[in-house]
Amino acid sequence: MQKNPLQTIMNPDSIVYLGGSNSLKTMGTAQLINIVKGGYRGKIYPIHRKDKTVLGLKAYPDITSIDNPADLAVIVIPPKAIPDVLKECGKAGIHYAIIITAGYGEIGQKGAQLQQELIDVAQKYDIRFLGPNCIGIVNSPIGLNTTWFPSKYRPGHVGIISQSGSYVTQTLTYFEKLGLGISQAISVGNQANIDMVDCLEYLGKDDQTRSIAMYIEGIKIPKAFLKTARKITQQKPIVALYVGGTEAGARASASHTGSMAGPNDLYSGFFHQAGILRARNVTDLFDWSLALAQQPLPKGINIAVLTNSGGPGSSMADEANHYGLNIPLFSQDIQDKIKSMTPFTAAYVNPVDITMNYDLDLIYKKLPELILNLQKIDGMLFYGIFGTIHFKDKIALSGDLSDISLDLMEQMTEKACNEFIKLPDKFKKPILCACFSGREDNAVARIQDGGIPVYPTPGRAVRAMAALWEYKKIKDRNIY
Amino acid sequence: MQKNPLQTIMNPDSIVYLGGSNSLKTMGTAQLINIVKGGYRGKIYPIHRKDKTVLGLKAYPDITSIDNPADLAVIVIPPKAIPDVLKECGKAGIHYAIIITAGYGEIGQKGAQLQQELIDVAQKYDIRFLGPNCIGIVNSPIGLNTTWFPSKYRPGHVGIISQSGSYVTQTLTYFEKLGLGISQAISVGNQANIDMVDCLEYLGKDDQTRSIAMYIEGIKIPKAFLKTARKITQQKPIVALYVGGTEAGARASASHTGSMAGPNDLYSGFFHQAGILRARNVTDLFDWSLALAQQPLPKGINIAVLTNSGGPGSSMADEANHYGLNIPLFSQDIQDKIKSMTPFTAAYVNPVDITMNYDLDLIYKKLPELILNLQKIDGMLFYGIFGTIHFKDKIALSGDLSDISLDLMEQMTEKACNEFIKLPDKFKKPILCACFSGREDNAVARIQDGGIPVYPTPGRAVRAMAALWEYKKIKDRNIY
Repeated sequence: MQKNPLQTIMNPDSIVYLGGSNSLKTMGTAQLINIVKGGYRGKIYPIHRKDKTVLGLKAYPDITSIDNPADLAVIVIPPKAIPDVLKECGKAGIHYAIIITAGYGEIGQKGAQLQQELIDVAQKYDIRFLGPNCIGIVNSPIGLNTTWFPSKYRPGHVGIISQSGSYVTQTLTYFEKLGLGISQAISVGNQANIDMVDCLEYLGKDDQTRSIAMYIEGIKIPKAFLKTARKITQQKPIVALYVGGTEAGARASASHTGSMAGPNDLYSGFFHQAGILRARNVTDLFDWSLALAQQPLPKGINIAVLTNSGGPGSSMADEANHYGLNIPLFSQDIQDKIKSMTPFTAAYVNPVDITMNYDLDLIYKKLPELILNLQKIDGMLFYGIFGTIHFKDKIALSGDLSDISLDLMEQMTEKACNEFIKLPDKFKKPILCACFSGREDNAVARIQDGGIPVYPTPGRAVRAMAALWEYKKIKDRNIY
Repeated sequence: MQKNPLQTIMNPDSIVYLGGSNSLKTMGTAQLINIVKGGYRGKIYPIHRKDKTVLGLKAYPDITSIDNPADLAVIVIPPKAIPDVLKECGKAGIHYAIIITAGYGEIGQKGAQLQQELIDVAQKYDIRFLGPNCIGIVNSPIGLNTTWFPSKYRPGHVGIISQSGSYVTQTLTYFEKLGLGISQAISVGNQANIDMVDCLEYLGKDDQTRSIAMYIEGIKIPKAFLKTARKITQQKPIVALYVGGTEAGARASASHTGSMAGPNDLYSGFFHQAGILRARNVTDLFDWSLALAQQPLPKGINIAVLTNSGGPGSSMADEANHYGLNIPLFSQDIQDKIKSMTPFTAAYVNPVDITMNYDLDLIYKKLPELILNLQKIDGMLFYGIFGTIHFKDKIALSGDLSDISLDLMEQMTEKACNEFIKLPDKFKKPILCACFSGREDNAVARIQDGGIPVYPTPGRAVRAMAALWEYKKIKDRNIY
């Protein structure tokens, strides 16, 4: 079996870089800075015709001047020059490349011809390349980021394969807010040589990657895709957003990555066969991938809702039913037990609503443990995160009157959250949370960092729980 | 016609407050602080049996000790004591009250009896009251906030009527991120006396309120609700989230606000008749309300997509088709014109994708003006906001190499955005944006503050555009 080209492309010991200079004004330099300053520890050989050094590194006038062949060439130079450069790579013994440059298949006939040249050269010289018209790759664990966007990726367990560079770069601030960490991210561009199937195979075997998020405009080799995806989804979930299913989506995809899209229903059936969860939008794509990467799967559809506020609790219960989950009534003795532990205004039948109060032990520990311990309950939806953010404002407003120690409060919350985050592992049941505050609240940040997803609305937590259950069913079906 | 009770409750000249003290440990005090320190300029009379002053204000031993009857009583004392207090209010000539305290109809038979007492006393003494079991009200323009949560509400044009206190308080940080401003917000609680219908009537006439967002667990007086809502939706949009339509949702609602829910389809039909847009989750509820409050309505379904990135552009186009919007091809001469203005890698058929570049004049002005000026185009979806956030990181990473002035960049962005925000008004066509960064990016903040919604994903902008079109159809139907 042939070696997967991503093995080297994602983990090169050395990189030759074409398109970097000492001026930040070129895109190539801005990308090279990420490689140089982002934590990557391999050897870097910038190519520059005139300058002796580039970004403080020794520069080489051309590829052949480098003593040892590099593992990987990263190429950000004008499109017409690339076929010759690729030949040089081949002659110098460099067998892997990332071609960032755009202006190929996606711009029509003329670009397609140029793209064919790349394919021919690569075949002749035994080169595998990613792109063209891609934004590069991110490998968090080794600090390698070949994109333009600065390296602030939170290391984590979601792997991304995307036909859009934006979904692995401009989404960075979005991921940060969700507490979503990336294992590896691959922008595939026009897939002239390396296909999404290669990426799937690679991430399927990557231990750090626990779920795979895909942004798809069109699948080029459906048979191979199906075979590979089916194998992976037995072990590891794949969530896909496909945007070529409508007339406008197909048109946009064609001009973006030169993709040939297919009808919506065809793709739905295809994803179903492959065991891939189909997300209908970006929100679901990343919400689900996050939950799937971080939480155990529910064994059934019986979910408990624990809340300190009626509205979000009702929203969760209603949406859970809507998405096929069951919110079972607790038995009388469990109801009595919960009633005895909670204020007289509380609800205790499921949802359990302790109403507004600040008993950290009750909401983060006693009730969750009681609930998750029930044989009948397969997972928990939680709206009860209440860190110090609102108290901070309150104390500021209260001035001298306040004798509340924010530090103490933060410590108490931190301690309670540290217990809470152990629960999914302890009970082997998933917990998904919602909170209208984000990481500006210390409790949200702590819980997200502890591996339990916290979504900005009740409904998003519910849909992610439904996705966990969907994937459980996929894993259980014996069609292989 | 009787005066609407909310007129006084939302705009009292004076408030008598029961349940405040000089200790921050009681909920009542924490709420009173908001009224005292939140910017409200009316007179406040705290009632306290022993203390001469409360929070620095002169305190009164009981209601009858106050010289002039206050406009409004805000009551946060234990449930059993309230009927007597309400009597005192009546005797003292106070005709309006907000009863925050919980423990009534929502906790079962015993609470229901106590609630009936409140109703009887109110009737006898001609008192209209909000609640019980509510979190109070917010009137941004006059700085009045009777809730526990600190007053950081951004003044704006979305009015909220909610059967859950959390949706007008804990959502504060959520609204902040969306740039969603509140005109007035009313937590109705158990609706023992004042009903959502009263609130609808009131907000229907409020000039600051341009759209109404409702969180509904059950409608008590459907006939009156329908009549009022139908009248309002001819002039002003209403978006409703109803959570009682499933078995679990109905159960949760009953224990939360004692609401009687009805089947899902019944409510859907009811909302349709009333001309109310039904949101299926919290995300849509506030996304749509925001767009409806701030943007003109599209005259038709023909929408242009303008982007600086292919993936989000494709996502927008695909979802737009999915939600019934049309992304029409531009005519040949328009395509040629756009082609002549954009880089060779650009797409110009609709979506227009200028691909990654930093020509602010092109993306914020020239292209939007060209597109919005087209007779055929009814609105624009925009993914091209690119402020200085990523440059900030880049410059930090680049150290001495960088000769980019962040200040200059920020000024340039600010200037471009200031032009951009004038476009909806100039062309009388809606613009909705998506950006994966939030208000931490200066361009996002500027555009949101300028009245154009910026959503965190492409799909959310699309669904909000579809909601604008849905409301346009409701306004146009001649069933009244």
